Order: sequence, then C-alpha cells, then structure tokens
Amino acid sequence: MSKFQPFSVTILGNSSAAPTNNRNLTAQLVTYENRRFLIDCGEGTQNRFVQLHVKQTNMDHVMISHLHGDHFYGLFGLISTLHLFGREKPLTIYAPAALDALLTEVFRVSDTRIKFPIEFYALEDFISEPLINDEQLNIKCFPVNHRIPTWGFKFTEQPKRRKIKKDFIEQYRPTILQIKAIKAGEGFNAGQGQNLLHEDITVEAPSTRSYAYCADTAYYEPIINEIQHANLIYHEATFDSTLEQLATEKFHSTARQAALVAQKAQVGKLLIGHFSARYKDLNPLLLEAREIFPETYLSEEGTCYQIE
Amino acid sequence: MSKFQPFSVTILGNSSAAPTNNRNLTAQLVTYENRRFLIDCGEGTQNRFVQLHVKQTNMDHVMISHLHGDHFYGLFGLISTLHLFGREKPLTIYAPAALDALLTEVFRVSDTRIKFPIEFYALEDFISEPLINDEQLNIKCFPVNHRIPTWGFKFTEQPKRRKIKKDFIEQYRPTILQIKAIKAGEGFNAGQGQNLLHEDITVEAPSTRSYAYCADTAYYEPIINEIQHANLIYHEATFDSTLEQLATEKFHSTARQAALVAQKAQVGKLLIGHFSARYKDLNPLLLEAREIFPETYLSEEGTCYQIE
Repeated sequence: MSKFQPFSVTILGNSSAAPTNNRNLTAQLVTYENRRFLIDCGEGTQNRFVQLHVKQTNMDHVMISHLHGDHFYGLFGLISTLHLFGREKPLTIYAPAALDALLTEVFRVSDTRIKFPIEFYALEDFISEPLINDEQLNIKCFPVNHRIPTWGFKFTEQPKRRKIKKDFIEQYRPTILQIKAIKAGEGFNAGQGQNLLHEDITVEAPSTRSYAYCADTAYYEPIINEIQHANLIYHEATFDSTLEQLATEKFHSTARQAALVAQKAQVGKLLIGHFSARYKDLNPLLLEAREIFPETYLSEEGTCYQIE
Repeated sequence: MSKFQPFSVTILGNSSAAPTNNRNLTAQLVTYENRRFLIDCGEGTQNRFVQLHVKQTNMDHVMISHLHGDHFYGLFGLISTLHLFGREKPLTIYAPAALDALLTEVFRVSDTRIKFPIEFYALEDFISEPLINDEQLNIKCFPVNHRIPTWGFKFTEQPKRRKIKKDFIEQYRPTILQIKAIKAGEGFNAGQGQNLLHEDITVEAPSTRSYAYCADTAYYEPIINEIQHANLIYHEATFDSTLEQLATEKFHSTARQAALVAQKAQVGKLLIGHFSARYKDLNPLLLEAREIFPETYLSEEGTCYQIE
C-alpha cells in the first residue's frame, strides 16, 4: 500500500464555451481516497462519465464555479440520471446562489421528482470559512475575476501526524494504547525514569498536498496568494498571447498569463485548459506557457493527474 | 438532378432516459431540400452535430415532443452555441407551453442574452391546425400517450403538380406563359379549334412522401390514424416484449407494439429507437418487430434515412 492516500484529478472536459470534435465542455473530477468531487458540469459530463467508465457512486459533492452555461448545463441531466439509477444518499452542491431555485424549476417543469436529497450551499456564504474541513481535507473557494461572480477551489490535505520510528517499536514494543498516545503527540515513558521525547521516537510527517482550480478568470494577481505552493493547479488558458487583448475583454487568460500565475505562486505543476474551440493544435499554448513556467502541461480529457 | 427533393431523417440520438457508451439521448434532424428541422434535443445533441459535421445553418425549426429532460436538456446549450457563433436569423421552437418561461429563466440565470429572436409556439395551440403549411411541407403534431402531455409529428410533402409530357412540348413548343398555365392545371389551345385537355398533355404527379415521429408513447391506437400510409415512421421501442408490463407502467412501447402500429397504419418502413440502456445487443428487438412488420429497421445514430 502506498504511504500516500490517492489524490488526483481527472479531466472530463476542457473546451471553452462550445464543444469541439474532441473536446467537451468543462468538468473535472477530484479523487481523494475513495471520495470524488465534481468541479463544474458542462453539457455532456454524464456522457464522459460513461465513456471513461468513471463510477459516480462515491461522488457526493459537486462544485460549480460560476453560472455560465458551459459550466453547468450538464447538471440537470447528471442529477436526473443519478435519480434514475436509484441514488438514495444526499448530493451536496456548492454553487452560486441563483442555481438553487433554477434546479427546482427545471425539475418541476420536467416533472422529475428527484428521490435523493440535494443539499445546496451558496458559494457567496463561504467568504471566510472552508466549504469542507474534515479529517481528510480542507476545501475552500476563493474569488477569481470573470464577467460574472466566479470562484476557484483549493483542495488541501489535512496536516499529517509524525510517524513512529520502526527501531523504537522493535526496541520498546509499545502497547496499542501507548502507540495511540505517541501518534497524538506524546512522548514515551521507558521506565527507570527514562522519558523519550516525541521528536526523538518519530519522524517528520509527510508534507500535505494541495490542488487548486482556477477557471474562468482573467489574469488576476489575488489568485496567487490563494494557491501559493500548491502541488498542482489547473488554470484556464483560453487564448494564446497574440489574443491577449481579446482575453482581457472576455475576462479570460492567455497561456502565458496562466504560467505567470503558476510561477509567482511557486506551484509544483500547472495544467492548462478551457481552450478556445479555434485551436486544433494546442502546442503553441503549451510552448508559450513553458517559456515562463517549464512545469506546464496540457490538460487532456480522460487523463488522471496525480497530485504529488 | 433527382426528380425528388431530398427528404430524409438523420438520427442524432436514440437512447432512452440516460446515455450509454454508444447511444446518445433523443434527437433527430429532418431534412427537406435545404431546410432542417430538429426533433427533440436531448443533452449532447450539439456534440452530435459537431461529431457528424452536420451544419446548423438552415436549421430554423425545433420541435420538442415533451418535457422529460432526456428530450430537451440539450436545448439550452445548443441555443447558446448558435448565439456564440453569431446566428442572427430567428429560431422557431414548437414545444409544450411551459418550456417558454423556462428558457427565459435559464438564460437569465446564466447571464446569456441570446442575440437572435426565438419565436416560441406552444404545441397545445395546434390541436386542429398544422404547425407549418407552406409551399413545400405540411407539418402537424398529434397527441401520443405518455406520462405527461406528449406529441408526435408528421411531415408531409405538399401534393405535387402533374408534369407536362415531353412529346407534347416537342410537338407544340408552348411559350413559358403557356407552360405556367398548364402547370397550374389548364389545358392547351393548339389552334384551329383544337383544345388539348390538361390530363392528356400531362402525366400523373409523383406521390407525396411523409415521415412521422412517435415518441415517447405507450402502445396507442389513435396514432394509427394519424400516420396512415406514411413512407417512414420512427416509433419508440424502449423495451422488448418480455418487459411489456414495465413498458405499460412507464408509458413506453415494446418493439412488437411499435411493429403493430406500423402494420395497422400500413406504413412503408418502421425505424425503432429510444432503446433502454439495458440493451447492448438490439437484435432481439429487431427480430420481434420483424415478425409482425418485416420492413422494420433499427435506427442507428449518425445514419441518414431517405424518405422514399
């Protein structure tokens, strides 16, 4: 077994605005251990789930970054299909507030009485507190800069505990209770007045990993602080640098700007996506980003990227 | 050039309720000459247009049979994309009345101001008059029998005029004005008191062709009268006969029931579709339908069926 919990993101769609022959509208699935989190849900997301044989069983949370149709028109069908296939457990949705009433209206008009509970949380209510903060993960949203209110998301593992040294266990054979106490931060009474310090009988905890999603957004420096030192980020790169003015007008980024954000935030790796349908060959976008930030990769639909 | 105007239907999706790995949700495109009519628009219809390289330029009419999500959740994205690609001419939508306000609401919430006019007509208002009755086509809707109000559609060519005989033209060399008069039903004054009758200088008009769409529906005998003698019909066949009771409960049909409708209506050919996701192999449905109505075919996505 790996010493790390599986932590990855699978790209389900990375086309901006309209689908192309081989790129679908925005959606991605973050996996942490056996939990799955869907970020955005463009039209056709449920088709991608089927094509990629991705199970939706443990997908209990959906985050919608903003209410442009290419980021959420797939949610109506996805929810209908979960309902049709007998889902009973709740689905939690974090999205701009206006989506709540629209979901209700769409299902009312289409005479669909969803059998499982939908727990809706408005992103507007999470300015200073995380969406989720449990034993495994801290997930927060942060504002990005688009034509309408739009949020990015950052997934951070909870800090790990220091690990007990193997040779200590072999030498002192601690009981289960004693092991629990050490894991909780205590030292060890070895008898005969010998107290071993916690730091001496444990090794440093593995560092926590994090992933951030930044789309749709213009080049926006406040993002840098939010995603500082993330292991992996996805940042939109709708256009190449020759279209920087168009990018600014449309509140989108160029590949170069995505790379600048990655560089300034000192992240590990940058995935670019949300490509304009005009690009058949994406290599020019990759090359211009790598000039600034060499650890840039083109996000590819169907590929699962490990966060490490 | 063919003596017939092109008249065909292209299947864009034929899966019921949820998409499968190779079947998409319901949509089909009827082509008559250079006009295109979209019937139903399940999620992913715009992806099918792109994949099949079908131009949407002359698609000016959309008909939505009923408001179950698998038949219209693709309309929001399709309209957004037409808007994005600069459409200016109107799009006419015939659908159950409740869709009108929902379209407005979806585009309001997603901050999309569609630049071309959407002309909405409620199917409820077309009980006794055709949706379209112009020089080329008569298109009418008729009720079918589903859990919610649902309509079928029938496309019928307008009656053709009789054609002028070649040997008459060679012998009498009529003027253009005279030809127009004959085409309009008149005879011909050949001089010297010789009046040729219209019937004698023309041959019988080619017969008019028709296509009917019947989905979603339970087995429903009133449909038979509506689609009598159609050259081609599409009738849903969600289930095979072993699931006839389930079909009845869900207001769907079996392949055998679709064939019974085709047989009793004395149509030319039957296309079956709207298949339950449970069927990987559709041949059992085809076989049971052909036992009743040999001219049955499985509708295949991406295939264009001529109406002849």
